[in-house]
Amino acid sequence: MLLAALLASSLLVQDTVRFTPTIQQPTFEVREPVLRVKPNTVLISNTNFGPYYTEQDGPFPGEVGPIYVEGATTGDMLVVEIIRVHPNYKYAAAKLYPDFGGLAADNRVRMLNDPNPAARYLWELDTVAMTGTTTLPNSRLRQVTVDLRPMLGRVAVAPRGAEAFSGLWPGAYGGNMDAPEVRAGTTVYLPIFHDGAYFYFGDGHARQGQGEVAGTGLETSMDVVLRLDLIKGKAIDWPRLEDKDYIMVAGSARPLIDAFRLAHVELIEWLEQEYGFDRWDAYALLGQVAESSVANIVDPNYTVVAKFPKRFLPR
Amino acid sequence: MLLAALLASSLLVQDTVRFTPTIQQPTFEVREPVLRVKPNTVLISNTNFGPYYTEQDGPFPGEVGPIYVEGATTGDMLVVEIIRVHPNYKYAAAKLYPDFGGLAADNRVRMLNDPNPAARYLWELDTVAMTGTTTLPNSRLRQVTVDLRPMLGRVAVAPRGAEAFSGLWPGAYGGNMDAPEVRAGTTVYLPIFHDGAYFYFGDGHARQGQGEVAGTGLETSMDVVLRLDLIKGKAIDWPRLEDKDYIMVAGSARPLIDAFRLAHVELIEWLEQEYGFDRWDAYALLGQVAESSVANIVDPNYTVVAKFPKRFLPR
Amino acid sequence: MLLAALLASSLLVQDTVRFTPTIQQPTFEVREPVLRVKPNTVLISNTNFGPYYTEQDGPFPGEVGPIYVEGATTGDMLVVEIIRVHPNYKYAAAKLYPDFGGLAADNRVRMLNDPNPAARYLWELDTVAMTGTTTLPNSRLRQVTVDLRPMLGRVAVAPRGAEAFSGLWPGAYGGNMDAPEVRAGTTVYLPIFHDGAYFYFGDGHARQGQGEVAGTGLETSMDVVLRLDLIKGKAIDWPRLEDKDYIMVAGSARPLIDAFRLAHVELIEWLEQEYGFDRWDAYALLGQVAESSVANIVDPNYTVVAKFPKRFLPR
Amino acid sequence: MLLAALLASSLLVQDTVRFTPTIQQPTFEVREPVLRVKPNTVLISNTNFGPYYTEQDGPFPGEVGPIYVEGATTGDMLVVEIIRVHPNYKYAAAKLYPDFGGLAADNRVRMLNDPNPAARYLWELDTVAMTGTTTLPNSRLRQVTVDLRPMLGRVAVAPRGAEAFSGLWPGAYGGNMDAPEVRAGTTVYLPIFHDGAYFYFGDGHARQGQGEVAGTGLETSMDVVLRLDLIKGKAIDWPRLEDKDYIMVAGSARPLIDAFRLAHVELIEWLEQEYGFDRWDAYALLGQVAESSVANIVDPNYTVVAKFPKRFLPR
Repeated sequence: MLLAALLASSLLVQDTVRFTPTIQQPTFEVREPVLRVKPNTVLISNTNFGPYYTEQDGPFPGEVGPIYVEGATTGDMLVVEIIRVHPNYKYAAAKLYPDFGGLAADNRVRMLNDPNPAARYLWELDTVAMTGTTTLPNSRLRQVTVDLRPMLGRVAVAPRGAEAFSGLWPGAYGGNMDAPEVRAGTTVYLPIFHDGAYFYFGDGHARQGQGEVAGTGLETSMDVVLRLDLIKGKAIDWPRLEDKDYIMVAGSARPLIDAFRLAHVELIEWLEQEYGFDRWDAYALLGQVAESSVANIVDPNYTVVAKFPKRFLPR
Repeated sequence: MLLAALLASSLLVQDTVRFTPTIQQPTFEVREPVLRVKPNTVLISNTNFGPYYTEQDGPFPGEVGPIYVEGATTGDMLVVEIIRVHPNYKYAAAKLYPDFGGLAADNRVRMLNDPNPAARYLWELDTVAMTGTTTLPNSRLRQVTVDLRPMLGRVAVAPRGAEAFSGLWPGAYGGNMDAPEVRAGTTVYLPIFHDGAYFYFGDGHARQGQGEVAGTGLETSMDVVLRLDLIKGKAIDWPRLEDKDYIMVAGSARPLIDAFRLAHVELIEWLEQEYGFDRWDAYALLGQVAESSVANIVDPNYTVVAKFPKRFLPR
Repeated sequence: MLLAALLASSLLVQDTVRFTPTIQQPTFEVREPVLRVKPNTVLISNTNFGPYYTEQDGPFPGEVGPIYVEGATTGDMLVVEIIRVHPNYKYAAAKLYPDFGGLAADNRVRMLNDPNPAARYLWELDTVAMTGTTTLPNSRLRQVTVDLRPMLGRVAVAPRGAEAFSGLWPGAYGGNMDAPEVRAGTTVYLPIFHDGAYFYFGDGHARQGQGEVAGTGLETSMDVVLRLDLIKGKAIDWPRLEDKDYIMVAGSARPLIDAFRLAHVELIEWLEQEYGFDRWDAYALLGQVAESSVANIVDPNYTVVAKFPKRFLPR
Repeated sequence: MLLAALLASSLLVQDTVRFTPTIQQPTFEVREPVLRVKPNTVLISNTNFGPYYTEQDGPFPGEVGPIYVEGATTGDMLVVEIIRVHPNYKYAAAKLYPDFGGLAADNRVRMLNDPNPAARYLWELDTVAMTGTTTLPNSRLRQVTVDLRPMLGRVAVAPRGAEAFSGLWPGAYGGNMDAPEVRAGTTVYLPIFHDGAYFYFGDGHARQGQGEVAGTGLETSMDVVLRLDLIKGKAIDWPRLEDKDYIMVAGSARPLIDAFRLAHVELIEWLEQEYGFDRWDAYALLGQVAESSVANIVDPNYTVVAKFPKRFLPR
């Protein structure tokens, strides 16, 4: 399928670039690019930064980038077509942190209660059968095997202005949205706040539950194939996603209801601008056909993906 | 399929009861029952209260009940197996209210902004083809047709203590959860706070989007077939749901994050109590396999359904 | 001072009624009145329900009422002038509950963390010197003495419609607002949702911190003197308060920001309706002169009191 | 009083430094210092950046800094004693923004409603009488005069790690807390995340209401006298404040309840660490004596100041 996809798009692309990252970045911001590409470039790369997900453990990896997209301006939209995200290592790791997690008090949601225990779950990956297996040390079910659903936790441009957000943050610039929808077959459209866009990606999850409730996905390294392109002359405010079934907006904010509303209001504005819907008709219709998923409730901003089924769009 | 289901369960049931409701109730509370049934009763009934969903419009209907379940005590769990929920009228109605809705300021989420306009969308239902069609008066797409996915907005017992909540409220007693998962094929388990349980149902939606963001579903009257039963000697705190793929908990609270956490914490406690999971193993696993849906963000409490795929349960 | 106040108002009042409550109510709702009074009645009563605040401990007391106010209609406003709230017992009690409190996970704000410990602090009251003293069993400071600031946690009318809320709830009908501002010298204006108003009061706190963060105030019994009156032909939506320095609105909701906004938006609408402010001028002015206090963050709804200094009102 | 304060502290200070800022910074972050001072330095400076608050209007000013404090390490605490904050210009400005404000939908709290109108209020300041006067163009009260209560919206160190937050953000590093408590007579203790601390200050408000609900205070330029010092060997996590009556913690987060809890939990930890309180005794006591103020509900994080009256501290 990858080959087919590559062939299909090869007629259109100007360039295929192989890039082996050697630097991982701690923040999303404008900095010296590690690569410059033309619009409509297929980028073949990876997120091979350890040792977080090895047997030995280690610090959480940063992201790859920034990649400067020639000709990108703040009046345009960056197109990130996700062609392939595939785990390339034998392990993934998931942790419980006492100061970071969604269902327990943590360092942003402070309570007087004692913190939860720390724990680490090493998952063995079968990247052919696409399964992952781990041990649950204290449960009747001692071993659990899940099917893999690889995704990228982070796709981003440099944020607006002079700000620099650590890799944990999602926002209007994308970032650490931790949305399972950011997978092969999805195209992400990102706003551009600086000429050149300064694209980043990283944080591969071999699988992740909705909400990423315990704080991490199955963190591992990934082979990544992306097509980077521009839609000229059309600016957007928040990341948009599209796959064969849905148009979607990823809204990131705290509290959760603000992320939820933001994503849906932006989706309605998309329906108004591109598809001729009246604002209130779109609202009323969304009441009957909207779908949504809570991507994460652990990051500095929570992320909600609001979805409109394409079958209800005008032809 | 209804007949098959009825036949399949007929070997086990003690009773089949046909009940035609004549009173609609304004609140969930302990009051004189309209019906008394034995455990393991198939109830064949409807929610035929208008005229909200007619061409003429009218007040929003209340709920059917309470039904007293003989032998139900506060140490038990009420089983509500949803066998059939089928629209039985040619129209459904959906409205925009200036003081009630999820993506605009309303009478609980107060802002200084001007309120949104009121509007009413009458949907024509084809209850054989199972489609609904309405006009979008101000949009390029003038008419939209959707497939119907009938559900019950409300299944409830009388709330704890002496409280009486209007039909708009969801809570630990179930109530107006507006969860699309409350449909044929799902079994809802409700806590029991008073001997006899005092079961209520109503608020049929021919279809409803996740979040019920504009304030209503496709409100219409329904034919309803439910099996009411007890699981003796097992008390629960919040509504649990089960279908062929998932065990689920419906948590209702404001703010949204509290509904989200409540549903997931209760789900983990279910995994601990019934399936031998360690609390923190379950948390970690949920990080990779949890699914969830935001049922409503408009009612006095919001509702989130947290889901655990049955294929990851121990055999 | 009490006598002076009584004398001062005696020229105007139609009636002085002494009422010794014998029943405590579990909910705010329309029920058989325990007393009927005319408008402009001084009510001399108490909240003498134990044994929660005795040495032996016991269940939390309910509220006194309902009191039917003759001639009250839904087009009027109930006036509750608080003349005296004075502790009349030698003890007050404050507790920590594992399932109820503001700075730890509880049964509405669910987390996976272990709950906080239960504890009870018995406070000795000197109702002449107006001080309270307790022991802090595990702290360097073994004994602490505070000045008393008596208040009523609950003043209410019967809620709208057929609903019945337990005494823990605050809302548009007043209820368990736990606002320290509800003290002698303050007049509370309550909406009326049923003819007769059905007034309730109770929940004396000899003192309470802002936010009532640990779940209770210094709970004790109180001598209470209130003047009940009507302002005819003027309906309000939420409780208003007034003392010599401020006009105030008490907004109750979850999440906290919604209580905060509700109280301030209602305050702005008061400034518009009664004092000739333009909506946006009032908003801008509030940005410079608004004061507010968080009354409680523990009840089913949180309460915020928004305050406008009277010295900035037009003469 | 200024002279007295200066004289009183002159026996202890090593240095008095006059600094006239010429650069305003767009973010809080580690960057080339504009000044280096020794610990225990009295800094005499100002925030004279226009033209936001002039008759002509203009962009919002940035902050002064960073100031490198010699010898400051991440194991220490920065002491910012606020000796004087005094408006030095004849005008202050306050604005309503359609995309920024606390009581209306804005660009972080998105709703479908129409946005509020933009407006600008120019206030004439009398910096001797310490009053400010503006016109309310559409209200019965055409002119309003308020007493001035000057404060600094922003005191900050460089944030943890490599992050850079725009001047709108408050956080663990202080920043744009917009707390009226940051005024002459208050000492602010800030955490240090980088050797040298990198201190910033700015955003003078001649007056500001609690919550800064409309989005700005009376923004103007200030004469500022601060004493900068270190407490060696004592690290803190969040800004602490102290004046003659209170010890306080400023917690900044969204949602509001998280800012509220954070501030109070940190305050309890302060009571544990410095004053020998048991955690649960402190919690219980806070229930009766805590005070708090909502500083802002408009910035990217909201800020709450939790206060413990010093008279209840052990001697």
